[in-house]
Amino acid sequence: MKPVAKPLPLTAMRVTDRFFAPRIDLVRTQMLPYQWEALNDRLKDTEPSHCIENFRVAAGLSRGEYHGMVFQDSDLYKWLEAVAYQLAVKPDPALREAADSAIDLIVRAQTPEGYLNTYYQTHPAEKRFSNLQDNHELYCAGHLIEAAVAFAQAAGDTRLLGVACRYADLIDRTFGPGEDQLHGYPGHEIIEMALVRLFRLTREPRYLRLAKYFIDQRGQSPLYFEEEAKRDGNRAFGWNETFMRYQYYQAGKPVRDQAEAEGHAVRAVYLYSGMADVAVETEDPALLDACRRLFDNMVARRMYITGAIGSTHIGEAFTYDYDLPNDSVYAETCAQIGLCFFARRLLNAEMDGRYADVIERALYNSVLSGMSLDAKRFFYVNPLEVVPEACEKDDRLRHVKPQRQKWFGCACCPPNLARLLGSLPTYAFSAGDDTLYMHLYIGGEVCAALDHAEVRLGVESNYPWDGQVRLTVRTPGQYGIAVRVPGWCRGYELKVNGESVSATPVAGYIHLHRTWRENDTVTLTLEMPVTPMYANPAVREDTGKLCVVRGPLVYCLEEADNGGDLHLLRLPPDTIFEVRDEPGLLGGIKTIHCKAFRRSKAFAEGQLYAPAGQKTEWTETQLTLIPYFAWANRGLGEMTVWIREM
Amino acid sequence: MKPVAKPLPLTAMRVTDRFFAPRIDLVRTQMLPYQWEALNDRLKDTEPSHCIENFRVAAGLSRGEYHGMVFQDSDLYKWLEAVAYQLAVKPDPALREAADSAIDLIVRAQTPEGYLNTYYQTHPAEKRFSNLQDNHELYCAGHLIEAAVAFAQAAGDTRLLGVACRYADLIDRTFGPGEDQLHGYPGHEIIEMALVRLFRLTREPRYLRLAKYFIDQRGQSPLYFEEEAKRDGNRAFGWNETFMRYQYYQAGKPVRDQAEAEGHAVRAVYLYSGMADVAVETEDPALLDACRRLFDNMVARRMYITGAIGSTHIGEAFTYDYDLPNDSVYAETCAQIGLCFFARRLLNAEMDGRYADVIERALYNSVLSGMSLDAKRFFYVNPLEVVPEACEKDDRLRHVKPQRQKWFGCACCPPNLARLLGSLPTYAFSAGDDTLYMHLYIGGEVCAALDHAEVRLGVESNYPWDGQVRLTVRTPGQYGIAVRVPGWCRGYELKVNGESVSATPVAGYIHLHRTWRENDTVTLTLEMPVTPMYANPAVREDTGKLCVVRGPLVYCLEEADNGGDLHLLRLPPDTIFEVRDEPGLLGGIKTIHCKAFRRSKAFAEGQLYAPAGQKTEWTETQLTLIPYFAWANRGLGEMTVWIREM
Repeated sequence: MKPVAKPLPLTAMRVTDRFFAPRIDLVRTQMLPYQWEALNDRLKDTEPSHCIENFRVAAGLSRGEYHGMVFQDSDLYKWLEAVAYQLAVKPDPALREAADSAIDLIVRAQTPEGYLNTYYQTHPAEKRFSNLQDNHELYCAGHLIEAAVAFAQAAGDTRLLGVACRYADLIDRTFGPGEDQLHGYPGHEIIEMALVRLFRLTREPRYLRLAKYFIDQRGQSPLYFEEEAKRDGNRAFGWNETFMRYQYYQAGKPVRDQAEAEGHAVRAVYLYSGMADVAVETEDPALLDACRRLFDNMVARRMYITGAIGSTHIGEAFTYDYDLPNDSVYAETCAQIGLCFFARRLLNAEMDGRYADVIERALYNSVLSGMSLDAKRFFYVNPLEVVPEACEKDDRLRHVKPQRQKWFGCACCPPNLARLLGSLPTYAFSAGDDTLYMHLYIGGEVCAALDHAEVRLGVESNYPWDGQVRLTVRTPGQYGIAVRVPGWCRGYELKVNGESVSATPVAGYIHLHRTWRENDTVTLTLEMPVTPMYANPAVREDTGKLCVVRGPLVYCLEEADNGGDLHLLRLPPDTIFEVRDEPGLLGGIKTIHCKAFRRSKAFAEGQLYAPAGQKTEWTETQLTLIPYFAWANRGLGEMTVWIREM
Repeated sequence: MKPVAKPLPLTAMRVTDRFFAPRIDLVRTQMLPYQWEALNDRLKDTEPSHCIENFRVAAGLSRGEYHGMVFQDSDLYKWLEAVAYQLAVKPDPALREAADSAIDLIVRAQTPEGYLNTYYQTHPAEKRFSNLQDNHELYCAGHLIEAAVAFAQAAGDTRLLGVACRYADLIDRTFGPGEDQLHGYPGHEIIEMALVRLFRLTREPRYLRLAKYFIDQRGQSPLYFEEEAKRDGNRAFGWNETFMRYQYYQAGKPVRDQAEAEGHAVRAVYLYSGMADVAVETEDPALLDACRRLFDNMVARRMYITGAIGSTHIGEAFTYDYDLPNDSVYAETCAQIGLCFFARRLLNAEMDGRYADVIERALYNSVLSGMSLDAKRFFYVNPLEVVPEACEKDDRLRHVKPQRQKWFGCACCPPNLARLLGSLPTYAFSAGDDTLYMHLYIGGEVCAALDHAEVRLGVESNYPWDGQVRLTVRTPGQYGIAVRVPGWCRGYELKVNGESVSATPVAGYIHLHRTWRENDTVTLTLEMPVTPMYANPAVREDTGKLCVVRGPLVYCLEEADNGGDLHLLRLPPDTIFEVRDEPGLLGGIKTIHCKAFRRSKAFAEGQLYAPAGQKTEWTETQLTLIPYFAWANRGLGEMTVWIREM
């Protein structure tokens, strides 16, 4: 059960992509410096993070008290991980210095025995590892490990790795099947995949064993969280008290018995990612089956067309099959990012393009929508339909913001965006034994080590705006290049050195295996017609509505282009769509234009209901659609992804 | 500013109506005995009320502790008021005995100085009248007064009136503009209208003055609830902390400045009812203007087609104009009942049929839907669209029950239904100076004292199933009969003694003023075609949907008749509807039948989104609609009032 391929290391690709390179630059020049200010409480008009200060208090360098969420530490770890990815590809002395000072602080905050959690270190009366269900101790540890591995691999600094290993060793001594060990697992997952990553770097088998233990133990009877609550005696509200019960924590049953994506969406996809890692590393096909089942359930029944997941703010959770409300949605940016984590793991395990389809859909739509074009403001929740008045006046939509925010008290999403964008090359390509797989059409220079060849390729594309991708071979040799044909694509042409090649994709990839010469070219041209889409009729919210997509991009209507009352617009059948280049709009996009009809408000003042006869008048109008990821960059207004059909 | 008319006293009408008489009987034979058992904690499988027991504890007859809501006392008062209405029209020794025992208990529970609230009497550490905002002390007093007046008027027993007057006197000493008085007003209104009612019976001007004080003082600056919170120092959550702020309590500004129906819906309509009473009794046209403004806002922008009000469960409140979600609706039975209270007051003040239209719409639809056909189960929330799976699995719909419940911890709705149905004659007719107004077409014998005539009429109708109403004059004389023509009615015929009379309604009423002879007949025939209705296009939830009505009745689709997935059904334009008599169905109803189309689920397994082409297939099907009030009497299933149009 060897995985088909592995992601390329970060440094194997230099991204020059017209679409993504500027965004990755924004991460380095805007987001990470901004987030550093936030972590240090130097931002005006936002809630102070207190994150760095908590470490200073824990390290004995400051006398204050702990403030912030119980998982506040993780914000610094996520920031460090994102910084590592940037430093890997481009020196940045200011970021390096900030990161060094943060690592210094973390080293000083760790206790001699290896423990590290500023909340517990500043609350000595509270017993460590006594509330795994709610207090995020292992979650913070997981993020520490992720950051440490990233720093060691990408930035060549192993101090944080030392901290992480000492802490992982302590956790390994604390948790396990032994009589004197705790038989628990985290309420918020991530440490599972972090431990596998640590194992892959260090080859220390204890880390893999511990990851496997956390996964196998989850949901076993007697339920650890129930035992823990009994010992605790005084536990406050737990999400297990809601409809979701322990499935909020993905702990209602053993993970191998779970067939539906349930509970807190971010936790779920983090767990599934760890499950996939453990399945691959321990060669456990049953565990991989469980992953596939959960992926299928999610993608076939619980995913928005934008690639977003999590239908309700109550518990930030999945609900049930086909329940995909557009306005009261949760669709946390982190959940979509976690979905990319999970899909990338299954993709490499099986090399089936449907996993890459999901990564692409989430990335270009509901992940990117999480940040403003200037990378200064962020969405936590990514709605598919917004009426600002409703967000303002309806307490049920209190979680939905019609405009991106500067920072959040629970600031998980902005650094997670920085992590994902910084590690984009690992999503674009994978290396099989003798084949280089291209998943995403991101321009740049790639250098991959296959079993018997080093492959270097140049990639040019104007994706997602055009469907033409051109690969130029830099290294001669005999090896395979596998090019993904997206699931959404109904027509394509492949040329090698200008000559058409007839080939049918296998599991979403066209395999070209030959002896390559330098400067050979492979050109893939994907047809990108504008396509109105239906949701499965089981999705009640989308009945009688269309969504307009082009290539990987979901489009939407904004009030800025189309006026308010978007619910009064109707797309007629057989609508003809026109695509226009708009280099000056929203950072350079393609807009879509079409004819539509707007229902008149032919009601008398004060008339709330009236006989249907004579009451429908339609006015022809022109619609302008923009890519969903670019919405809410032009002030407050309505937005909708799904448009009613005539 | 004398009101145009007054409601008839309860005893002025003997109801023999085929539709309502059996329902009123059910109140006497089913609901009230059942509720008595509930109040005495003798029901199995339901939460104990503890209401009677609280009175026993307060009276020193039992040693237990107080249990239940802080306003638990009001359940007994509402029950007593409903019992009084029944005893007024029909002796019932068992109910009488139960009521007598309850009144005995209340008399014994009242303190020597006149105070009466079992929560505070059993919590001596808590200061009386110190938390008007949240603790419902004046609300309970208001219900006591309502019950006392009803008992004195209808059942000829003044013991409870003595209790009420003593307590009202204490409240009058406690509240007012004096330096040593509290300048507050209730967080939950009702005492305002109760005091006016007490004034009308006793003619004691202090009671009217106090009602006016509570209304005028409300929302004045400095805000009493803020002052109270400062004195309290330790106040728990208040609804003022939500979006609604103090408008939750209708206290964000003085009532005369309020133009929109806001906050807790039941409180709002109870306040407005008191405002209308005070406006009429103190001849205050500005206050009546405020009432009219609030009524117009509610009815033109915030009312469901079923006559229901209150769009959100968060605070059981109004939201904003045209926000009328069908599935997450609140639409508390009590809110619709309170709307009837308010509309009846404005109707008598102005005698405009649009107020009667609202009473009729609420009564026949969203009030009656509050109880099962056997009067044994009740809805608190009256949704217009239900998918049982969603109610079960979606925490956002936790407040929506797909089936009626036996009883509630907060048991306001069932006794309120008993109050309204028991006092129905006061909604059916009003007496003007020389004119008897008929608002509702309820069969029975009426006897009304006008200024210069006593009028007796027989009323026969098969309403709401047929539009023919026949009045037979029992008393000769010169007086007017004014017959309402409903706002929904597009065609009607009026005959006197079999001969057509051409007359145009004025403000919704046809006035027939003549010298009547015994056995003269007036026959009004209202056309009742099935009419598909649109909502104002500003109502986003109802865009592209139709609601089928016939006469006063809103119809709905139930899964029992039409299968599940009601969202896949479409009504084509120009649908032809057929009405069928179904004497054996749901207590005897008329059903509506029509052709429709059902969208196929032409999606492959696992396909969540697909290009729109080729994906729509329609199957012709037959629909059966039933009256909305009768839904959920045949087991669990989907229901919808609004149907998508083709």
